[in-house]
Amino acid sequence: MAYMDIKGMSLKLAEKKLSIASTEDKNFALKKVSDSINYNRKEILQENAKDVANARKSKMKEGLIDRLKLDDNRIDAIIEGIDTVIKLPDPIWRSDKVWTLENGLTISKMTVPIGVIGIVYESRPNVTVDAFSLALKSGNCILLRGSSSAINSNLALVKAIKEGLRESNIPENVIEFIEDTDREHVKEMLNATKYLDLIIPRGGRDLINYVIQNSSVPTLQTGEGNCHIYVDESGDLGKALNIVLNAKTQRVGVCNACETLLVHKNVADKFLPKLYDAINDKVELRGDNLVRNIIDAREASEEDWAEEFLDYILAVKVVDSVDEAIEHINKYGTKHSEAIITESLTNARKFQREVDASTVYVNASTRFTDGFEFGFGAEMGISTQKIHARGPVGLDQLVTNKYLVVGDGQIRK
Amino acid sequence: MAYMDIKGMSLKLAEKKLSIASTEDKNFALKKVSDSINYNRKEILQENAKDVANARKSKMKEGLIDRLKLDDNRIDAIIEGIDTVIKLPDPIWRSDKVWTLENGLTISKMTVPIGVIGIVYESRPNVTVDAFSLALKSGNCILLRGSSSAINSNLALVKAIKEGLRESNIPENVIEFIEDTDREHVKEMLNATKYLDLIIPRGGRDLINYVIQNSSVPTLQTGEGNCHIYVDESGDLGKALNIVLNAKTQRVGVCNACETLLVHKNVADKFLPKLYDAINDKVELRGDNLVRNIIDAREASEEDWAEEFLDYILAVKVVDSVDEAIEHINKYGTKHSEAIITESLTNARKFQREVDASTVYVNASTRFTDGFEFGFGAEMGISTQKIHARGPVGLDQLVTNKYLVVGDGQIRK
Repeated sequence: MAYMDIKGMSLKLAEKKLSIASTEDKNFALKKVSDSINYNRKEILQENAKDVANARKSKMKEGLIDRLKLDDNRIDAIIEGIDTVIKLPDPIWRSDKVWTLENGLTISKMTVPIGVIGIVYESRPNVTVDAFSLALKSGNCILLRGSSSAINSNLALVKAIKEGLRESNIPENVIEFIEDTDREHVKEMLNATKYLDLIIPRGGRDLINYVIQNSSVPTLQTGEGNCHIYVDESGDLGKALNIVLNAKTQRVGVCNACETLLVHKNVADKFLPKLYDAINDKVELRGDNLVRNIIDAREASEEDWAEEFLDYILAVKVVDSVDEAIEHINKYGTKHSEAIITESLTNARKFQREVDASTVYVNASTRFTDGFEFGFGAEMGISTQKIHARGPVGLDQLVTNKYLVVGDGQIRK
Repeated sequence: MAYMDIKGMSLKLAEKKLSIASTEDKNFALKKVSDSINYNRKEILQENAKDVANARKSKMKEGLIDRLKLDDNRIDAIIEGIDTVIKLPDPIWRSDKVWTLENGLTISKMTVPIGVIGIVYESRPNVTVDAFSLALKSGNCILLRGSSSAINSNLALVKAIKEGLRESNIPENVIEFIEDTDREHVKEMLNATKYLDLIIPRGGRDLINYVIQNSSVPTLQTGEGNCHIYVDESGDLGKALNIVLNAKTQRVGVCNACETLLVHKNVADKFLPKLYDAINDKVELRGDNLVRNIIDAREASEEDWAEEFLDYILAVKVVDSVDEAIEHINKYGTKHSEAIITESLTNARKFQREVDASTVYVNASTRFTDGFEFGFGAEMGISTQKIHARGPVGLDQLVTNKYLVVGDGQIRK
């Protein structure tokens, strides 16, 4: 039997049982998994140390090694993450829509699990546990394919998860892991329509594009964020400065950080020098000619408008109107998070209606686009596609629906 | 410029304007389109006659010619279809979820159009207008690719639609049609991720599979239905017989017709002879050995359990329990529509929870799975996938969401 068939059939055997498991059983299983990770802490750290040593040997960048590395604090955070998911409401077998037809049939639209979800992800080993606990709570089986650089850490984590599940009423094969790092298996996974209902890629742009281009299983595109802040003519410049500083510098390597600033021409003279004074010592500014007439900045190239820097770099452009700002954003943005700083109700409304993005802010930092900040409790990523789920993907987005129709003999005329 | 770029850029130019169009403007445009189809009736029928003549020449089956053929009644039905869509509530810029975070940010989850939807479809020319009117009302631009056998009819209909739009405030390039029947353009369309947000294939199994296998644009899988009715031990056999007759014979060529009947062993002796008497003169029965011990039937092959006959054929099997019925359905079904006939609350609940399908019935015909019957007013097809929308796809399923976040200077800590 092919490798993917073994994994797929194992998951399929667990699928129905997990889909109808009680919240009590799911929470108990998650508790057992969190205990098991705690109990296996030493082994997990030892296996992680092997990955880190291999990464050093192959000259991996320190930033990436930091993402790969586990320590006691990070294991604690992983365990806390599971406890958070335990406390979240079960998203399954709920309805907010029940209606009755003229012929007496009653229809209830119920939430049900999606089925089996595949995750293809890069270095961070905590994703292994985060993705598993969200999948389990939402009644979905999960097939994981991590990067080869984290293989020892991931294997140790999956072993601990399965050990925990064996002490619960949830079958241990609700989670399967592709332990063979052969890249062929990714291709097989992307075409395993027989076993997988959805694939979520988590990682850099190349990984995401590869998965989307090559998958015949439906995919959920997450991550890329070229986010803008537009400071309108009527904007409160004090608020604007705080918000730009926060969105650009509070954390630079994240998808909801600000990458381009747009400033209305009538406030550019006043706002840009303030910005320069506050930010120039740590952020490289790249501006168009109008910006460079006011402050010292490198010249922005056409590519800069489209770039997700994930770094201490900010592209800055002066615009004539809210319409030009909207046009620029819809042309270069990645439909993630966009903000306007304004006191004009008309411009706020126009910006929120016409900018095409998952989340559109008025007078707030783009950094809030996040499952935790939104109050979803946890997230599987932030969707930048329009199909299925858009924006932060929490438990409520990891479901599909089933219509229950109850009658007493109705036939169609 | 490549063919698909011309079409794609034309649609993109119309996208924002349509996405924020008022309900009034959209309804007025639909009315103008319906007037224009009425006004161009003669030309549409003449062009359709060419398609029918070509189909006859190439020996198309009469059943397919019937689907292709338009007449005055069918044009009337197309016009009525538009009027129905005009009367439906606008699904855009609505919210059933608004909440406020501890920091004072207010988040509203709003419905917005998906963007540009591609439809790849087979012979019926009415799909051209149905798909257009649903797309327009839900604020989505549409790219149509019909079959070459209906090319003259479709071109005449699209011409009439565009003529109608020119008298409205909605740009005529909200609809584009691939008038060149070169199959290469389908491939280009399936990879036009730059222009298309979603592709919906409408037609036979081969077309749907081809689109799903080859599209890097997200797809919505519609149509295939291998639907079952299970007559439980406790079922009311009078109701059961009515329901089976209705679901099998009221219309055989549709996806929500019943293809396999499962009967509990304890009622098989009593129920199967009734069924035989009622149905045998017009429906070919294919049974397992237990069935054939009771009534005269052809032997069912393994393939018969998986087949969507779309014909006067019914596969029949005797099962030991509701569990065996559920297992059979989850193995052979297409997750479309499934029914149990029972008076047992426990078995009804078990069947509805454990059968994996878009719609699960208790004591009613599977034929009700339909956007009109469900009260959605119209439909773009019935989704058999779990991602984005499952079951009938009406206006409310042709949307995505945008989170509006309003604050007064909030930054992330």
